[in-house]
Amino acid sequence: MTKKEIAAKVALRTGITHKRAVAVIDQLLAEIKSSLAAGEKTEIRGFGVFKVRRTKRKVARDLSTNTEIVIAPTRRVKFIPGKQMKEKLNRKLAAAE
Amino acid sequence: MTKKEIAAKVALRTGITHKRAVAVIDQLLAEIKSSLAAGEKTEIRGFGVFKVRRTKRKVARDLSTNTEIVIAPTRRVKFIPGKQMKEKLNRKLAAAE
Repeated sequence: MTKKEIAAKVALRTGITHKRAVAVIDQLLAEIKSSLAAGEKTEIRGFGVFKVRRTKRKVARDLSTNTEIVIAPTRRVKFIPGKQMKEKLNRKLAAAE
Repeated sequence: MTKKEIAAKVALRTGITHKRAVAVIDQLLAEIKSSLAAGEKTEIRGFGVFKVRRTKRKVARDLSTNTEIVIAPTRRVKFIPGKQMKEKLNRKLAAAE
Protein backbone atom coordinates (compact mmCIF):
# COMPACT_ATOMS: atom_id res chain seq x y z
CA MET A 1 0.00 0.00 0.00
CA THR A 2 1.30 3.47 -0.83
CA LYS A 3 0.65 6.85 0.77
CA LYS A 4 -1.75 7.76 -2.02
CA GLU A 5 -3.81 4.60 -1.49
CA ILE A 6 -3.90 5.18 2.27
CA ALA A 7 -4.95 8.80 1.77
CA ALA A 8 -7.81 7.67 -0.46
CA LYS A 9 -9.05 5.24 2.20
CA VAL A 10 -8.65 7.76 5.00
CA ALA A 11 -10.58 10.39 3.00
CA LEU A 12 -13.38 7.91 2.33
CA ARG A 13 -13.69 6.80 5.95
CA THR A 14 -13.40 10.22 7.60
CA GLY A 15 -15.36 12.26 5.06
CA ILE A 16 -12.65 14.80 4.27
CA THR A 17 -11.37 15.47 0.77
CA HIS A 18 -8.51 13.47 -0.68
CA LYS A 19 -6.40 16.61 -0.93
CA ARG A 20 -6.97 17.44 2.71
CA ALA A 21 -6.23 13.87 3.79
CA VAL A 22 -2.89 14.04 1.97
CA ALA A 23 -2.12 17.40 3.65
CA VAL A 24 -2.89 16.00 7.11
CA ILE A 25 -0.87 12.83 6.53
CA ASP A 26 2.08 14.81 5.17
CA GLN A 27 1.95 17.11 8.17
CA LEU A 28 1.80 14.17 10.55
CA LEU A 29 4.83 12.55 8.96
CA ALA A 30 6.69 15.88 8.95
CA GLU A 31 6.01 16.29 12.69
CA ILE A 32 7.31 12.80 13.45
CA LYS A 33 10.41 13.44 11.34
CA SER A 34 11.07 16.79 13.05
CA SER A 35 10.64 15.24 16.44
CA LEU A 36 13.11 12.48 15.56
CA ALA A 37 15.53 14.97 14.01
CA ALA A 38 15.47 16.82 17.34
CA GLY A 39 16.43 13.55 18.99
CA GLU A 40 13.04 13.12 20.60
CA LYS A 41 11.05 9.91 20.47
CA THR A 42 7.45 9.80 19.26
CA GLU A 43 5.04 7.52 21.03
CA ILE A 44 1.79 6.65 19.29
CA ARG A 45 -0.37 4.61 21.63
CA GLY A 46 -1.61 1.39 20.06
CA PHE A 47 0.71 1.78 17.09
CA GLY A 48 4.27 2.02 18.26
CA VAL A 49 7.22 4.14 19.24
CA PHE A 50 9.71 5.79 16.91
CA LYS A 51 13.07 6.23 18.58
CA VAL A 52 16.41 7.58 17.51
CA ARG A 53 19.55 5.61 18.08
CA ARG A 54 22.90 7.18 17.54
CA THR A 55 25.76 5.07 16.26
CA LYS A 56 29.24 5.77 17.59
CA ARG A 57 32.04 7.44 15.71
CA LYS A 58 34.37 4.68 14.64
CA VAL A 59 37.95 4.77 13.52
CA ALA A 60 39.07 2.09 11.12
CA ARG A 61 42.36 1.69 9.31
CA ASP A 62 42.99 1.12 5.65
CA LEU A 63 45.80 -1.43 5.88
CA SER A 64 46.96 -1.07 2.30
CA THR A 65 47.71 2.64 2.67
CA ASN A 66 48.05 2.65 6.48
CA THR A 67 45.66 5.60 6.87
CA GLU A 68 42.89 6.10 9.34
CA ILE A 69 39.31 6.10 8.12
CA VAL A 70 36.80 7.86 10.31
CA ILE A 71 33.29 6.50 10.16
CA ALA A 72 31.10 9.40 11.24
CA PRO A 73 28.29 8.77 13.74
CA THR A 74 24.81 8.54 12.26
CA ARG A 75 21.35 8.56 13.69
CA ARG A 76 19.06 5.66 12.95
CA VAL A 77 15.35 5.33 13.49
CA LYS A 78 14.10 2.35 15.38
CA PHE A 79 10.41 1.46 15.45
CA ILE A 80 9.08 -0.58 18.33
CA PRO A 81 5.57 -1.88 17.59
CA GLY A 82 2.93 -1.30 20.27
CA LYS A 83 0.90 -3.94 22.05
CA GLN A 84 -2.24 -3.45 19.93
CA MET A 85 -0.18 -3.70 16.76
CA LYS A 86 1.43 -6.95 17.89
CA GLU A 87 -1.94 -8.39 18.86
CA LYS A 88 -3.57 -7.37 15.60
CA LEU A 89 -0.79 -8.98 13.59
CA ASN A 90 -0.89 -12.21 15.51
CA ARG A 91 -4.61 -12.70 15.99
CA LYS A 92 -5.06 -14.42 12.64
CA LEU A 93 -2.08 -16.65 13.23
CA ALA A 94 -3.40 -17.74 16.62
CA ALA A 95 -6.79 -18.51 15.07
CA ALA A 96 -5.14 -20.62 12.37
CA GLU A 97 -3.25 -22.81 14.85
CA MET B 1 5.91 13.53 21.60
CA THR B 2 2.56 11.78 21.90
CA LYS B 3 -0.29 11.31 19.44
CA LYS B 4 -2.26 14.07 21.15
CA GLU B 5 0.60 16.53 20.80
CA ILE B 6 1.12 15.61 17.16
CA ALA B 7 -2.62 15.97 16.46
CA ALA B 8 -2.56 19.46 17.99
CA LYS B 9 0.33 20.51 15.75
CA VAL B 10 -1.22 18.93 12.67
CA ALA B 11 -4.53 20.70 13.36
CA LEU B 12 -2.76 24.03 13.77
CA ARG B 13 -0.72 23.69 10.57
CA THR B 14 -3.47 22.32 8.32
CA GLY B 15 -6.38 24.36 9.65
CA ILE B 16 -8.65 21.46 10.55
CA THR B 17 -10.11 20.93 14.00
CA HIS B 18 -8.23 18.97 16.63
CA LYS B 19 -10.99 16.38 16.72
CA ARG B 20 -10.83 15.89 12.97
CA ALA B 21 -7.03 15.68 13.02
CA VAL B 22 -7.26 12.90 15.62
CA ALA B 23 -9.84 11.07 13.49
CA VAL B 24 -7.65 11.27 10.38
CA ILE B 25 -4.52 10.16 12.24
CA ASP B 26 -6.39 7.27 13.88
CA GLN B 27 -7.74 6.20 10.51
CA LEU B 28 -4.30 6.39 8.94
CA LEU B 29 -2.78 4.23 11.66
CA ALA B 30 -5.69 1.77 11.41
CA GLU B 31 -5.10 1.45 7.65
CA ILE B 32 -1.41 0.77 8.14
CA LYS B 33 -2.19 -1.81 10.82
CA SER B 34 -4.80 -3.54 8.64
CA SER B 35 -2.42 -3.62 5.73
CA LEU B 36 0.28 -5.17 7.89
CA ALA B 37 -2.18 -7.62 9.45
CA ALA B 38 -3.01 -8.74 5.88
CA GLY B 39 0.69 -9.35 5.40
CA GLU B 40 1.08 -6.43 3.03
CA LYS B 41 3.83 -3.83 3.34
CA THR B 42 3.10 -0.12 3.47
CA GLU B 43 5.42 2.23 1.70
CA ILE B 44 5.32 5.91 2.60
CA ARG B 45 7.62 7.82 0.30
CA GLY B 46 10.07 10.03 2.17
CA PHE B 47 9.17 8.46 5.50
CA GLY B 48 9.78 4.75 5.34
CA VAL B 49 8.43 1.28 4.79
CA PHE B 50 6.54 -0.88 7.26
CA LYS B 51 7.05 -4.56 6.54
CA VAL B 52 5.93 -7.76 8.17
CA ARG B 53 8.40 -10.47 8.99
CA ARG B 54 7.20 -13.87 10.09
CA THR B 55 9.22 -15.84 12.58
CA LYS B 56 9.40 -19.60 12.15
CA ARG B 57 7.65 -22.16 14.30
CA LYS B 58 10.29 -23.54 16.62
CA VAL B 59 10.37 -26.69 18.67
CA ALA B 60 12.38 -26.62 21.86
CA ARG B 61 12.67 -29.22 24.58
CA ASP B 62 12.26 -28.83 28.29
CA LEU B 63 15.12 -31.04 29.48
CA SER B 64 13.92 -31.35 33.07
CA THR B 65 10.59 -32.89 32.04
CA ASN B 66 11.72 -34.11 28.60
CA THR B 67 8.72 -32.59 26.85
CA GLU B 68 8.59 -30.62 23.65
CA ILE B 69 7.75 -26.94 23.76
CA VAL B 70 6.37 -25.45 20.59
CA ILE B 71 7.15 -21.80 20.04
CA ALA B 72 4.40 -20.58 17.72
CA PRO B 73 5.34 -18.40 14.76
CA THR B 74 4.67 -14.70 15.21
CA ARG B 75 4.59 -11.75 12.89
CA ARG B 76 6.82 -8.79 13.60
CA VAL B 77 6.76 -5.33 12.15
CA LYS B 78 9.96 -3.97 10.73
CA PHE B 79 10.33 -0.30 9.85
CA ILE B 80 12.90 0.71 7.26
CA PRO B 81 13.44 4.48 7.26
CA GLY B 82 13.28 6.22 3.88
CA LYS B 83 16.04 8.27 2.27
CA GLN B 84 14.54 11.66 3.25
CA MET B 85 14.16 10.50 6.83
CA LYS B 86 17.79 9.38 7.01
CA GLU B 87 18.96 12.65 5.50
CA LYS B 88 16.86 14.77 7.83
CA LEU B 89 18.18 12.93 10.85
CA ASN B 90 21.78 13.23 9.82
CA ARG B 91 21.88 16.75 8.41
CA LYS B 92 22.53 18.34 11.81
CA LEU B 93 25.20 15.80 12.65
CA ALA B 94 27.03 16.46 9.38
CA ALA B 95 26.87 20.22 10.03
CA ALA B 96 28.32 19.72 13.52
CA GLU B 97 31.35 17.77 12.29
